[in-house]
Amino acid sequence: MPAMNASVFLPPTSYDYVTVHKVQGSAIAAASDVLAAEEPLEIRVGYGPAGQREHRTLSITMRTPGHDFELAAGFLLTEGLIASRQDLQGVLYCPDVAKEEERENVVRAELAPAAAPELPRLERHFYTSSSCGVCGKTSIAAVHAAACPVLPAEGPHVAAAVIHQLPERQRAAQALFEQTGGLHAAALFSPEGELLLLREDVGRHNALDKVIGAALLQEQLPLHHAVLLVSGRASFELVQKAVVAGIPVLAAVGAPSSLAVSAAQDFGMTLCGFVRQDRFNIYSHPWRITALTQS
Amino acid sequence: MPAMNASVFLPPTSYDYVTVHKVQGSAIAAASDVLAAEEPLEIRVGYGPAGQREHRTLSITMRTPGHDFELAAGFLLTEGLIASRQDLQGVLYCPDVAKEEERENVVRAELAPAAAPELPRLERHFYTSSSCGVCGKTSIAAVHAAACPVLPAEGPHVAAAVIHQLPERQRAAQALFEQTGGLHAAALFSPEGELLLLREDVGRHNALDKVIGAALLQEQLPLHHAVLLVSGRASFELVQKAVVAGIPVLAAVGAPSSLAVSAAQDFGMTLCGFVRQDRFNIYSHPWRITALTQS
Repeated sequence: MPAMNASVFLPPTSYDYVTVHKVQGSAIAAASDVLAAEEPLEIRVGYGPAGQREHRTLSITMRTPGHDFELAAGFLLTEGLIASRQDLQGVLYCPDVAKEEERENVVRAELAPAAAPELPRLERHFYTSSSCGVCGKTSIAAVHAAACPVLPAEGPHVAAAVIHQLPERQRAAQALFEQTGGLHAAALFSPEGELLLLREDVGRHNALDKVIGAALLQEQLPLHHAVLLVSGRASFELVQKAVVAGIPVLAAVGAPSSLAVSAAQDFGMTLCGFVRQDRFNIYSHPWRITALTQS
Repeated sequence: MPAMNASVFLPPTSYDYVTVHKVQGSAIAAASDVLAAEEPLEIRVGYGPAGQREHRTLSITMRTPGHDFELAAGFLLTEGLIASRQDLQGVLYCPDVAKEEERENVVRAELAPAAAPELPRLERHFYTSSSCGVCGKTSIAAVHAAACPVLPAEGPHVAAAVIHQLPERQRAAQALFEQTGGLHAAALFSPEGELLLLREDVGRHNALDKVIGAALLQEQLPLHHAVLLVSGRASFELVQKAVVAGIPVLAAVGAPSSLAVSAAQDFGMTLCGFVRQDRFNIYSHPWRITALTQS
């Protein structure tokens, strides 16, 4: 196999610098940190013979900016919409997007006029409404609009020592599944650290939807006095789902994305990340975390 | 907050027992293992006033069976399709699914007649074709049909020592991003372990689509002589995407799901998991991994 272009160069838009509060034991200190950027990418396709081209929105995915044309090309291939390089005329940033700041979040793949994408397969991907030109901001605005008020600025207060204990308590409750090593977990705790509910799934969004669905069916919403721990990273979508359920404190064992942090800031949520080994970072609304001493 | 039903009971369909080949150093031995199950769940909704009910497919998600009604309820809430428990009349396994073995993979959420789901929001979720009653088998069959032949049963052969080295080589190439701790990576290697291409993203499917898209744009497909390493777990969708690109060996730092393993078996792919600390498991087609001694 010939050598490939192995460049791992990533544009500056691939990461973000933020100020965080780093907690170790009961000590807290401000520090700067680097986050992986997360932004929506809308993939549009143009297809059909010359003179009768149609353009449709195919997919919106949350991604890290960089290598966007490759992402679009790979998505088209692996979803079966094109079969080879010859089916693809080109990929470009969509020049007719009105807002300049959204222009690099919309790519258009032009299929070759001779390419005959399987229409039922295309249809399965197309949203009937193609009005969803989301960018991070639009999407956040949509949540605000959709019965998703900003979280109450009132509490609960959670001692740092409680946050430190959450992963161990979650793992103990996951004992049955420890053997597979293959499951994400989402768990609700009281502000005192008592486990209220735990669900597992191969998909992290599913684990959280199961937790929120259980609370809904038990008429426990909004969860204004609960602390949520997720086993993986904190993405924008996890923050969004937690806000809809009214959860004021989200702790993640892994890293948050840039958009998760800005959404948590906007919605009034306290977001903690890297909760492990007696340390964690606070990315937004640190006032809910107590029993800490400035170091 | 009152105590919730914190049951973590999972049905037997939540996990699968398989026989694997466990590799440690250059020794290989058969062993049994437990995997997290992964199967598609189709969520349908019924809505509208009595006598004029409509039913549509809303979403198909790959999930671990168990707590399916909670998953559907949580999904409807967090996607903004219902606002409260009162909007939901009930959730049931769809009794009119023809194949009995698919019946527990299709749930129907009946919205209250008075519930007025935001139609544009519903529309955004509905596929224009609702013919996608996938179950694992159907979905695998669809890949077979869609220009995705079974991988050639010819090679390449990869020494176990090469597999052991892949995570370290991937991490070295990810140096720029090690600071964020928040990115998945997918990397192509030669059968001798030379890094060919690496891409990173907050989403693991995106990282793989970027790799495959780069290979497509460089006219390097099919990748019949490449070994793919992914930083996280191996899901059905990652196996499916890799097969479309012709990749015969997929190694994952994390665990595979049950459906990832059965898809890899069917497609002729060698799937390795838990590649770390001089160990890994081989879940399918072990004959491509060489330089091993039965222990």
